[in-house]
Amino acid sequence: MRTVIIGGVAAGMSAASKLKRLNPNCEVVVFERGKETSYGACGLPYYISGVNKDENLLRIRTADAFIASGIDLRLCHEVLAVDSAHKSVQVKNLTTGEESFCSYDQLVIATGADSILPPWPGSTLNNIFTLKSIEDANCIRAAAQQAQRIAVIGGGYIGLEMVEAFHKMGKEVLLFEKDSHVLTSFDVEFSELVEAGLAPYVAALHTNESVVGFEGKDTVQRIVTNKGIYEVDLVLVAVGVRPNTGFLQGCNLATLDNGALLIDEMMRTSIPNIWAAGDCASVRHKLLQKDVYIPLATNANKQGRYLAENIAGQHHAYLTALGTAMIKIGEMELGRTGLSEKEAIVNNVAYLTTIIQNTDHAPYYPGGEDITIKLVFSAESGVVLGAQLFGRQGVALRTDVMAACISAGMTVKQVGELDFGYAPPYAMPWDALHVAANVSESLFVKNSKKRSGSLDI
Amino acid sequence: MRTVIIGGVAAGMSAASKLKRLNPNCEVVVFERGKETSYGACGLPYYISGVNKDENLLRIRTADAFIASGIDLRLCHEVLAVDSAHKSVQVKNLTTGEESFCSYDQLVIATGADSILPPWPGSTLNNIFTLKSIEDANCIRAAAQQAQRIAVIGGGYIGLEMVEAFHKMGKEVLLFEKDSHVLTSFDVEFSELVEAGLAPYVAALHTNESVVGFEGKDTVQRIVTNKGIYEVDLVLVAVGVRPNTGFLQGCNLATLDNGALLIDEMMRTSIPNIWAAGDCASVRHKLLQKDVYIPLATNANKQGRYLAENIAGQHHAYLTALGTAMIKIGEMELGRTGLSEKEAIVNNVAYLTTIIQNTDHAPYYPGGEDITIKLVFSAESGVVLGAQLFGRQGVALRTDVMAACISAGMTVKQVGELDFGYAPPYAMPWDALHVAANVSESLFVKNSKKRSGSLDI
Repeated sequence: MRTVIIGGVAAGMSAASKLKRLNPNCEVVVFERGKETSYGACGLPYYISGVNKDENLLRIRTADAFIASGIDLRLCHEVLAVDSAHKSVQVKNLTTGEESFCSYDQLVIATGADSILPPWPGSTLNNIFTLKSIEDANCIRAAAQQAQRIAVIGGGYIGLEMVEAFHKMGKEVLLFEKDSHVLTSFDVEFSELVEAGLAPYVAALHTNESVVGFEGKDTVQRIVTNKGIYEVDLVLVAVGVRPNTGFLQGCNLATLDNGALLIDEMMRTSIPNIWAAGDCASVRHKLLQKDVYIPLATNANKQGRYLAENIAGQHHAYLTALGTAMIKIGEMELGRTGLSEKEAIVNNVAYLTTIIQNTDHAPYYPGGEDITIKLVFSAESGVVLGAQLFGRQGVALRTDVMAACISAGMTVKQVGELDFGYAPPYAMPWDALHVAANVSESLFVKNSKKRSGSLDI
Repeated sequence: MRTVIIGGVAAGMSAASKLKRLNPNCEVVVFERGKETSYGACGLPYYISGVNKDENLLRIRTADAFIASGIDLRLCHEVLAVDSAHKSVQVKNLTTGEESFCSYDQLVIATGADSILPPWPGSTLNNIFTLKSIEDANCIRAAAQQAQRIAVIGGGYIGLEMVEAFHKMGKEVLLFEKDSHVLTSFDVEFSELVEAGLAPYVAALHTNESVVGFEGKDTVQRIVTNKGIYEVDLVLVAVGVRPNTGFLQGCNLATLDNGALLIDEMMRTSIPNIWAAGDCASVRHKLLQKDVYIPLATNANKQGRYLAENIAGQHHAYLTALGTAMIKIGEMELGRTGLSEKEAIVNNVAYLTTIIQNTDHAPYYPGGEDITIKLVFSAESGVVLGAQLFGRQGVALRTDVMAACISAGMTVKQVGELDFGYAPPYAMPWDALHVAANVSESLFVKNSKKRSGSLDI
């Protein structure tokens, strides 16, 4: 039995490895368009800034190691088309230009997503980059070393990490965001905390400002927006990603609006024997019970692994995602999981929300820092729907605590009662999460009384 | 209505404050034997070592603030006896020596626990201490400044924190533990990791060694054990605590074997209108469904608060404890929650266990550290029963994640599927907890097949 996997990074190589471990005799062929396999894309900003100087650390597992494990991994091979009727793919060897066909019994599409570079006038000038591959990172790094003034377009995760990276390199950084706030996957209170905290890292923060185009001779010299013109030596565009599924046109695979392949709980596409995983595919949101697009490495790795188990004849439903994410921006640490207030509103959820400030550990151990926690919870049941956290330490892993609580369907009351640990360097006897949950429970009780007409204040 | 509370530290003041907030018109009288109220006892080692130089930071809330909130707080007042038939307590003013009676409608016993100082010969010599109060801490700090060679007796949480504290003060520290290992609330693998890590902090670690007595003239000069005699200038005894319930003799209150007051889920003792909370009381273990003794500030604070809600007419069952605890010992960070393997064995639980080593964050961000995780889980259902973690960072809060998972009754498979966040400074796409859970799930599946006779290897 031959399984063909298109794409050899997170989801693809997770699937290939797991499949080979489960079934050493099956044939696993992986076609990867690029020169690299299985690298830590999220580590690229730290490689560019020089925080990590060793490119090889980005390579989680080498192509040779995969090949030695029995996987038929072919780098620089691009799949041009899929013929699902004849169960074969058309492949181009990018080194030789040669084209061929490869038949499959099972096909896995794990082509990921490409960074979006909008067709702005001038966008083909030199020194305008997007960031996805190690090659991109090396180009950006080399160019940035010669640059003085850098524009980052897009205030999402990658944009903000690159602001920090360029600042660390001693560059003057301009940040442009077309929305009214950066980090729109968080609620506005958190965006504002980040914007305030960005001051040491950016020369100027331009929100509500849209790029119109670029000017320059060969190399970019100016960025033109709806509000002004700015001299720059280098531009990093980080305005989002697009599922890499264009080559499947004509296959009639069901997709989300943005082209991400719609998959079921077993990670099957709408065509038999074709599976998909990772940033080219949908994921089921645990709370919304809808298929959504959350292109994160966490989902990609899990989907790849579980999909392989399913191909091997097991039954591993992908138990859905919460959009849990964490980010470090300079001294700031943020995390989010579940629904933001914005998402609750858009999805017509009857919610309540609280925001509290507390400390990450006891005042009688030095180094304590403020931590801000916002909970979104059901007005009807008190079940926690979402958490957002901001601080300087102890934030990321508390986000994971809340991801576990939300997955378990806990109410704010139950979170307030959890037996968290306490030691002065790490927490208080009532952890900051307890405080957030207890304040939420008070609001929930008060609101329930009001709704039932029994509130006497 | 008058509520009398005996004991004004964690559980007592939590109860007093909550009761006064819920019912501002009720009379709340607190009798506290000592001169201090509501201090962070767990912060004392860091105050002794000078890591925290400000004694006032230990005082979470001052007596004046409690009194201003309407609580009738009487420091230096010891309750000598309780007359439950007449609903009154006999109180001695320790400043004047005057004795009096105080009637109650509801009585809360929150007298905590005293450090055990076994009646070893010579134990009344100067410079032999136990650590409980700020006063103790000041005495130890002053004496330690003059000392050179210090013996710590007992390798539990306080003993180990004090080893670090004395080491930080530049002292030569001898640690004595009568058991074969330190930190017996963890399994032996973790005790051994700690023992190896203690090397820079102790001049000598004497396990399997029991104290026989002390020698000296006025001040301690030698510690005598079953194996030798050692010159020392100061001794800290940290061999455990004993519930402070001796004054209740004759009350016929139901207790555990060690004298801790047995309380029900509402925190009621066996006598009507008498409640108890904190280190003088039992707590229900969530997994064992047994009343056990876990004298931790976390339990004390929750019990005090929930008890007040119940006195105020609400119904807040204390939803049981997992024995979650965390500790920093020098560079080492440890956490535990739920059942250790030892506890699983003692309680006849059909368990499986795995231990893994992973990294706390991505290799392409500097500063990653190893993290060791042991899971104990049901051989029948795969439900997680316990977790123990060891490392240098990212350990304590991952323990809280596991506390949430265990509280929710998750299986190892479900933990492996949780949507934890990922960013290179904080985690890997598969977090160390995922790895531990996935390895455990593999063992569980293999074991289940073996049990059902369908294993073919």
